[in-house]
Amino acid sequence: MVNPTYLKYVNLKYKPKYSDLIVSAYLEPANNIDFKEAAGAVAAESSVGSWTEVKTTKPEIWKMSAKVFEISGNWIKIAYPIELFESGNMAQIFSSICGNIFGMKEIKNLRIEDVHWPEKIMKSFKGPLFGIPGVRRITRVKDRPLCGTIIKPKIGLNHKEHAKVAYTAWIGGIDIVKDDENLTSQTFNKFEKRVRETLKLKWKAEKETGEKKIYLPNITAETKEMIKRMNFVKEIGGEAVMIDVITVGWSGLQTVREENENLKLILHGHRAMHAAFTRNKRHGISMHVIADACRLIGIDQLHIGTAVGKMEGSKEEIISLGEEIEKSIIKPHGHILAEEWGKIKPVFAVCSGGLHPLHVPELIKMLGKDIIIQAGAGIHGHPGGTLVGAKAMRQAIEATIQGIELKEYAKTHKELKAAIEKWG
Amino acid sequence: MVNPTYLKYVNLKYKPKYSDLIVSAYLEPANNIDFKEAAGAVAAESSVGSWTEVKTTKPEIWKMSAKVFEISGNWIKIAYPIELFESGNMAQIFSSICGNIFGMKEIKNLRIEDVHWPEKIMKSFKGPLFGIPGVRRITRVKDRPLCGTIIKPKIGLNHKEHAKVAYTAWIGGIDIVKDDENLTSQTFNKFEKRVRETLKLKWKAEKETGEKKIYLPNITAETKEMIKRMNFVKEIGGEAVMIDVITVGWSGLQTVREENENLKLILHGHRAMHAAFTRNKRHGISMHVIADACRLIGIDQLHIGTAVGKMEGSKEEIISLGEEIEKSIIKPHGHILAEEWGKIKPVFAVCSGGLHPLHVPELIKMLGKDIIIQAGAGIHGHPGGTLVGAKAMRQAIEATIQGIELKEYAKTHKELKAAIEKWG
Repeated sequence: MVNPTYLKYVNLKYKPKYSDLIVSAYLEPANNIDFKEAAGAVAAESSVGSWTEVKTTKPEIWKMSAKVFEISGNWIKIAYPIELFESGNMAQIFSSICGNIFGMKEIKNLRIEDVHWPEKIMKSFKGPLFGIPGVRRITRVKDRPLCGTIIKPKIGLNHKEHAKVAYTAWIGGIDIVKDDENLTSQTFNKFEKRVRETLKLKWKAEKETGEKKIYLPNITAETKEMIKRMNFVKEIGGEAVMIDVITVGWSGLQTVREENENLKLILHGHRAMHAAFTRNKRHGISMHVIADACRLIGIDQLHIGTAVGKMEGSKEEIISLGEEIEKSIIKPHGHILAEEWGKIKPVFAVCSGGLHPLHVPELIKMLGKDIIIQAGAGIHGHPGGTLVGAKAMRQAIEATIQGIELKEYAKTHKELKAAIEKWG
Repeated sequence: MVNPTYLKYVNLKYKPKYSDLIVSAYLEPANNIDFKEAAGAVAAESSVGSWTEVKTTKPEIWKMSAKVFEISGNWIKIAYPIELFESGNMAQIFSSICGNIFGMKEIKNLRIEDVHWPEKIMKSFKGPLFGIPGVRRITRVKDRPLCGTIIKPKIGLNHKEHAKVAYTAWIGGIDIVKDDENLTSQTFNKFEKRVRETLKLKWKAEKETGEKKIYLPNITAETKEMIKRMNFVKEIGGEAVMIDVITVGWSGLQTVREENENLKLILHGHRAMHAAFTRNKRHGISMHVIADACRLIGIDQLHIGTAVGKMEGSKEEIISLGEEIEKSIIKPHGHILAEEWGKIKPVFAVCSGGLHPLHVPELIKMLGKDIIIQAGAGIHGHPGGTLVGAKAMRQAIEATIQGIELKEYAKTHKELKAAIEKWG
């Protein structure tokens, strides 16, 4: 029997209002459940509804109900009246549109693919403080991708060794050095000691190379501890930090961004754990939605994948993600909704995960110059070690920007040549 | 070609140390990938390793590597040396053991099913301030399940209407009234006004019934705002709050728990969004792992599902979850690992989602008396409305505790009788 309560949340004649929040989703009903009923169940549970009529409902409340206004195959679009949401509260918005619905018995699979954010909600978030223009201004790198590395091994070096590897990478031509996502402040390598030592060698590298260098210490922790770590970084002269956006969570991330109004540090977002719910194309939440939330909250640079490295993700998906966080106007495509980002700055897309110099031409072809190309083992695993690996990576970027094939460029650049011999 | 770097992380002769953190996981390798290679890839990426050897690795670091020490069909166990983790930093621990691994190309599906927490890590978290004994002391309900309701409709009542519905439910016999997971502080119902009004009617209901009543306002927001809301609740005489643990995230949740050392409010955890990554039995993170983290951080009462209501989840799973958060010693069963919770208090299990009075006997049979039975529409959707619905729910609990069948009890209790007529 079809639940009539749920069917009331499907209205294919409804025209979304300018102020509505829109969700694009993939839906498979549970066995023996009518598609419209399942779609209505999702709209009900994520707005004002329940599985049965309640006596406490007033007719005015119906105005605040979500409506399924489009069904196309397994794809649906839902419009949410803006009154359902608390401005500037990302956790509340996720509890609504990405909340209980994934667990309902009426559905077998449900994936929230994209969100269109109404202007008023968009304006209630701060967005990136720096974004692409700010990071380019600080790094003084205008016309090429930035070049980053992660200190490897992920875990195990003490603070002095860590700083030395960073220094070597910077000297070799790397712009940005970051901690790994699981390195915070363990007994073998304490946060304050590491930051102090690594910044010291950063300044040395800047002097020696004449280039601006960035260090991204990982502040991921309980919120007050993160604030303490940000303040410490600022006090001793750092200009950037990194944070694991998913494992920290929206509330802590928003607090970090608030604190950053004063501190003005570049915020780099790593997305560890995202693939627990973004990887399955039929169930969960897409990386697009996560990236939107990070852009709204105000991350300056965000990992979006590589398509070519060790992590999953198709080219189309990565290109679309890159556009979502970097462009100011998004035209609808596939199941991605239109967006106008207004004054919310573009986020610098970070490509990271199993990259080495040979991936560079394809990455730039795919995503353009506004990317941060990060390689860990693809630099420290170079046969010549970190210094030579860093040089090879920088050469791969230079060659590609000049339109020269890597093989050709390698004839006069032995570091790149050795990389090609290892990974070609 | 099998990646030899990854194979080094499989050691089936390894005997885990007392101080190791152990993970139990389900794994499907990607097509054409050897099972051991994929298992090793997971252990490498979540500890010290990379996809290729790096020149910066010292032999001592190898001691900190994770090891796959058991393989049984598609199930693996991984041992993590404790040095990999920062004590008291849940986000860091998740970035390690539930981080990048879900996105690796070597795997097709990966589900982290359970975690065994070593004593030292366990002691670095606060655990519940109240837990079952504390909540029973405050509510003065010793020998039956607590009876809760969620104000419905989820969204739309103003603060006065909200408070009135709460009052009616309390008068009808409900112990605990909570906000819905998507109600925080919207324009139509502001947090402070709602809490003030609802507590006023709570005190009235306490006077009139002679029973202790609890109100759980939803503080879900940016961290500092949550702290502000907690302090407000405390100041005006509230004794409990609720929080959406997943959408808030670990860092904000830990901060709330820290603040609670002084405020001493009961912390109720709603799990909206969990099923985005817990529902698929082959990929993601199980609710067991989330429940463990909530118990460690210190949630006093946590939603674990119902098996019988509107949300998915098998009986076996819900029973096992109930034990995991309520018992002090967990014996290994299925793919769940042994645990000794020591001084970490038991969390009160909350069953919520599509419940009505007829579900009560089965819930108590399944989970015992130490549960909070919550019904929203199953109370406000009673043909007689909230007051009668609350009475029917309380009658169902009383009947079951006395060992009387609902049908029998309904002969002398017309509210329960009407519920049976509607939902039987």
